[in-house]
Amino acid sequence: MIAKTPQAPYYAVIFTSLKNEKDDGYNETAIIMEELAKQQSGFLGLESARNQVGISVSYWISLEAIQKWKTNLDHIEAQQKGKSNWYKHYKVRIAKVERDYGI
Amino acid sequence: MIAKTPQAPYYAVIFTSLKNEKDDGYNETAIIMEELAKQQSGFLGLESARNQVGISVSYWISLEAIQKWKTNLDHIEAQQKGKSNWYKHYKVRIAKVERDYGI
Repeated sequence: MIAKTPQAPYYAVIFTSLKNEKDDGYNETAIIMEELAKQQSGFLGLESARNQVGISVSYWISLEAIQKWKTNLDHIEAQQKGKSNWYKHYKVRIAKVERDYGI
Repeated sequence: MIAKTPQAPYYAVIFTSLKNEKDDGYNETAIIMEELAKQQSGFLGLESARNQVGISVSYWISLEAIQKWKTNLDHIEAQQKGKSNWYKHYKVRIAKVERDYGI
């Protein structure tokens, strides 16, 4: 779904990843992390798609909310598994959404 | 591929879309627009994936470069076709990437 975000400004975390071949609990963890993100204070929405590359964009009310989510203990554990087990490469970009439009 | 962007700050255009059922030249135009974007001054990279939702993130050196690309004549034509023929909904978000990290 396209996230129903409020009027800009707000923040986006653009997470782009290349997975390796292993599943090894990946899908389960991805679903749990998505549910957990939605419960965080300051969470505004999430969009994700994967072909060769996976792109997940989460939207947040502030940098503080992003920082809190980054240091959530269950999320830290998932990030470590991501690095060691699932991702060949990834990039996280923290961005301030200055304006938006659409139909 | 994960875009090889320079040191932040730089800009991201996050384009999220829900397509309708029609193809009607969509794939061809998408490929042409991708090639054309890459030739623009200030273009830094592109990442895209589609499942239910399509996400394309293009990276740019400045807001001016984004504005120029938005008003490129071939691109305007593609945007109009997108609105009238291909997309049920879409959202464009212009964001300033403040920091990034990855492996």
